[in-house]
Amino acid sequence: MPLLTRATGPGGGGRTSLSEILADFVARTRFDDLPGAVVHEVRRSFLNWLGVTLGAAREEAVRIAARVLAQADPAPQATVVGHRRRLDCAAAALVNGLAAHLYDFDDTHARSILHPSAPIFPTCLALSEHLDLPGEAFITAYVVGSEVADRIAAAVTPWHNEAGWHVTGTVGTFGAAAAASKLLGLSTAQAVHALGLAATQAAGLREMFGSMAKPLHPGKAAWNGLLAASLAREGFTSSLQGLEGRRGFLAVMTPGSNPDALTHDLGRDFEMVKNRYKPYACGVVTHAAIDAAIEARRRGIEAAQVERVEAFVHPLVQELTGKAEPQTGLEGKFSVSHCIAVGLIDGRAGPGAFTDARVRSHDAAELRRKVQLVVDPDMGEEAARLVVRTVDGRQETITVDLATGSLERPMSDRALEEKFRMLVEASVGRERTQALIDAVWSLGAGASMRDLARSIPVVEEP
Amino acid sequence: MPLLTRATGPGGGGRTSLSEILADFVARTRFDDLPGAVVHEVRRSFLNWLGVTLGAAREEAVRIAARVLAQADPAPQATVVGHRRRLDCAAAALVNGLAAHLYDFDDTHARSILHPSAPIFPTCLALSEHLDLPGEAFITAYVVGSEVADRIAAAVTPWHNEAGWHVTGTVGTFGAAAAASKLLGLSTAQAVHALGLAATQAAGLREMFGSMAKPLHPGKAAWNGLLAASLAREGFTSSLQGLEGRRGFLAVMTPGSNPDALTHDLGRDFEMVKNRYKPYACGVVTHAAIDAAIEARRRGIEAAQVERVEAFVHPLVQELTGKAEPQTGLEGKFSVSHCIAVGLIDGRAGPGAFTDARVRSHDAAELRRKVQLVVDPDMGEEAARLVVRTVDGRQETITVDLATGSLERPMSDRALEEKFRMLVEASVGRERTQALIDAVWSLGAGASMRDLARSIPVVEEP
Repeated sequence: MPLLTRATGPGGGGRTSLSEILADFVARTRFDDLPGAVVHEVRRSFLNWLGVTLGAAREEAVRIAARVLAQADPAPQATVVGHRRRLDCAAAALVNGLAAHLYDFDDTHARSILHPSAPIFPTCLALSEHLDLPGEAFITAYVVGSEVADRIAAAVTPWHNEAGWHVTGTVGTFGAAAAASKLLGLSTAQAVHALGLAATQAAGLREMFGSMAKPLHPGKAAWNGLLAASLAREGFTSSLQGLEGRRGFLAVMTPGSNPDALTHDLGRDFEMVKNRYKPYACGVVTHAAIDAAIEARRRGIEAAQVERVEAFVHPLVQELTGKAEPQTGLEGKFSVSHCIAVGLIDGRAGPGAFTDARVRSHDAAELRRKVQLVVDPDMGEEAARLVVRTVDGRQETITVDLATGSLERPMSDRALEEKFRMLVEASVGRERTQALIDAVWSLGAGASMRDLARSIPVVEEP
Repeated sequence: MPLLTRATGPGGGGRTSLSEILADFVARTRFDDLPGAVVHEVRRSFLNWLGVTLGAAREEAVRIAARVLAQADPAPQATVVGHRRRLDCAAAALVNGLAAHLYDFDDTHARSILHPSAPIFPTCLALSEHLDLPGEAFITAYVVGSEVADRIAAAVTPWHNEAGWHVTGTVGTFGAAAAASKLLGLSTAQAVHALGLAATQAAGLREMFGSMAKPLHPGKAAWNGLLAASLAREGFTSSLQGLEGRRGFLAVMTPGSNPDALTHDLGRDFEMVKNRYKPYACGVVTHAAIDAAIEARRRGIEAAQVERVEAFVHPLVQELTGKAEPQTGLEGKFSVSHCIAVGLIDGRAGPGAFTDARVRSHDAAELRRKVQLVVDPDMGEEAARLVVRTVDGRQETITVDLATGSLERPMSDRALEEKFRMLVEASVGRERTQALIDAVWSLGAGASMRDLARSIPVVEEP
C-alpha cells in the first residue's frame, strides 16, 4: 500500500501536504490491505461501543436529543441505537455519539485521551445502514477514521487538552469526516476538502465536563464530520490546509504539536490496536483497586464480614478519587472507596454502581467507611494493594500490578462479552444479547450492515 | 427594564454570573421595551440581509448545501430564501446563513468585525415562520441575539480575530442561540444552558477565507445556535459558565478580552444601531474611491473619454487592495483600480462587478490600467480623492472625506432600498421587489412572519 508516493500535491512543487497525505490514506485504503489484528480490533471496539450505547439508550440526555432531532421529521434512514424511531443519517449519528460517551465507558486511545469510537462508529453505522453496505466497508471506514483521529490526537497531546479542549469533540470531527469520506467514496482531492471542513467545525470545551454537553461533543463531531464529507462530495470547498495552514487547526487550536505523529508509518503501524477498554464505569486510576476488590470477593470474602480494608494506592489515586463520602452517582466515580465497596459487594462496577441510589445505599456507604486509603509513592499508577480484614480475624492481601484494561493487560474478548452482557442483558434478554455478540464477531464476513443495525433491539421504554 | 437586579445566581452568594446576566436579558426583554430606533434598525438590517441572501440564492455553494440537507428529507418547516424546497428549521437556517455571507455584502458590527445578521436572521426567520409568529417576536429575538453577539464580539476584539478565529462563526453561535432562546420562550435558567451549549459548539477558522467554508461558518452558527436552544428548552444541561468559566469560551478561545463590554449598559445602549452596511460588494477600504468614481460618472464623465485617473488613498488601501492586474472575480475585490473602474463605468459595484467575466472584460481592464494610485498618508482610511482627466482636457477633482456606509455617513433607507433592488430586481421583477421592500418596512405591525417568509419569490432556476 504505497500511500505516500504521490509525486505532487495541489500546491505543486512535488510537496505533498499533511492534509493530502491523510486524505490519500482515506481514499486509497482497502479492506484487503488491513491486517487481521486490525480487523479484529474493530470488532472488539464495536462490541464495546454497541454495549455502552445500547446501555445508555434510555438515559434522559439521549431521549432529549432524539426528541429534538425528530422535530425535523426526517426520513428514517438510520437507527438510533435502542430507539424505535429512525432518523436521518446525521441526526442518528449525533444521538448515537452522545449515547456512546454518556457513561464515559467507551474506549480510549492510549497515547492521547481521545475516545475514538464515540464520534466515529455512529457515522459508520448510519451511512452503512442507509447505503446498505457490507461489514467490510464499515470496518474499512472505521479504520481510516480512527487512524486519522488517533494520529491527530497524538500529534496535539498534551497541549490541546491542556488548553481546555475536549479532544473527543474536536479531533473526533476529523475522524468522523474521514470515515464518512470513505463510505461516500470521496477522492483524495475531495477528502482534503472534507478534512478542511472538519477542521473548521471542530469544537468542544472541557468546561462542559460534568454536564450533558460533554457527551454531546462526540455526537456533534459525528454530525459535523458527516456534513463535511457530504458537502465535499458535492464539490463544496474548504482551505486545502485546514489542518496545517497558518490559521488552521494546529495553529489556532493547540499551543504545541508533534506533526510527525500524523504520518509516521501511516498505513503500516495502526494506532487503533493501542486502544484501551474500561471494565469499570469510572476513571482508570481506580481500576486496579476494583480488580483487587473483585478478587477479594472471588476468594470468598463477604462484604458484611469486612472489618477494615487498607487500600495502598499511588498518590494520584487519592488526589483524583479521594472523596470519602460521595453523595451522588457522579461523586461516586471520584471516590475510590466507593469503587472498592461496590467491587467487593457486587463483583463489578458498571453504570449501575454510579447511580445516586447506589451511592446512597446503606451497604455501599457502610463498607466504604471501612476503607482506609494509604498513599504509597512506590505503587504504580495502575497498581493497587488491598489488605482486607474480616470480623472473624481472616486477612487477605491482594496485589494488582496492572489493572485490567491497561495496555499491558488488555481486556480479553471474553471480558468484553461480559461487559456487553452487563450493559444490555437486563433490558434485551439473554438470547438477543448473544445474537448481537455473534453478529459483531462475524463482522466482515459479508453480512449487511443494514440487517445488523435493524436487528438492534428497542429498549427505549423501560 | 431592570435587567441586572436579580439578587442571586445559581452559584449562590448574591453574585450573578456573566452568563446569567446575558440569559436574563434574553429571557426578559420585551418588544415594548425596545426604542423605536432599534426597531427600525432591525428593519434596515433585515432588508439588507434579505437582499444579499436572495441575491446569492442561485450560487453553487448555496445549491450544494440545500441539496445535501434535503437528503434528510425533512419536514418543510422553513423557507430557504429563493428556493422552492422548504427544509426543517435548523437546515433552512444553515443554508440561509451561508447564502447571507456568501457575497461578504452583509452588515458589519463596527466595534468588532462581526457580521451579526448572517447567523442570526436565519434562526429568527426559520423559527418565526415555523411557529407562525408575528414580526414583533421576530424583531425582539433579533435584538437580543444581535446584542449578545455584538457584545461578546466587542469583548474579544481584537484578540480573538488575531488568534485566527472567524468571529462571525464563533460568536455568531451565541447570537443564534440567544435569538432562538427568545423565540422558543426559554427561561433565564434555560437560556444559561443554551449559551453554554453555544459556547461549546462555537467554531470557524480564518484559514477558510477564500473558500466556500467561510460563509458556511454563519450557517453552522445558525444551526448550532438553534440546536443549543432547542436542547436547553427540553432540559439538556451545559456548564453554567460556558462563556466565562475556567475552561470556557473566553479562557480557551481568545487570548484577551474586555468582559466589561458584555454587560455595560446592557438593554440601554444598543450595539445593533452601530451596524454598518456596505454599498459595494468588496472591502470597505475601497469604498471612498468607489463613491468618488460614481460621483465622477454623475458629473458626466464617460469611461471611454478618460485619459487618466489619479487616486489619492491612505497607505492601507494600497496595501490591502493594490492589485493592478486582477484576473478573477475574487482578485477584483482586492484591486481598488478595478473598483474605481467599475464604479465609473457602471455607477455601482455590486456582486456583478466581481465576477470573473466582469474582471476580465475589456472596458474594465482598459480603464483600470489608466488608474494611478498615489499613496497619501494624510488621507483618512475611509477617504479618497480622484483627479480624473479626459482626452478632451477636462479635469474633475472629487474628494470623499467619509465613505458611504461609514458610521458617520450611514447608508440611508433609500440607499438600502437601491441596494436591495440591485440584488434582486433582475431575478424577481420590479413589482415583487417593491412588495418585499414594503413588507420589510412594515415589520412589527402585526403581520405574520410565515406569510412574509412564504412570499419570498423562488429564484432557484435562472
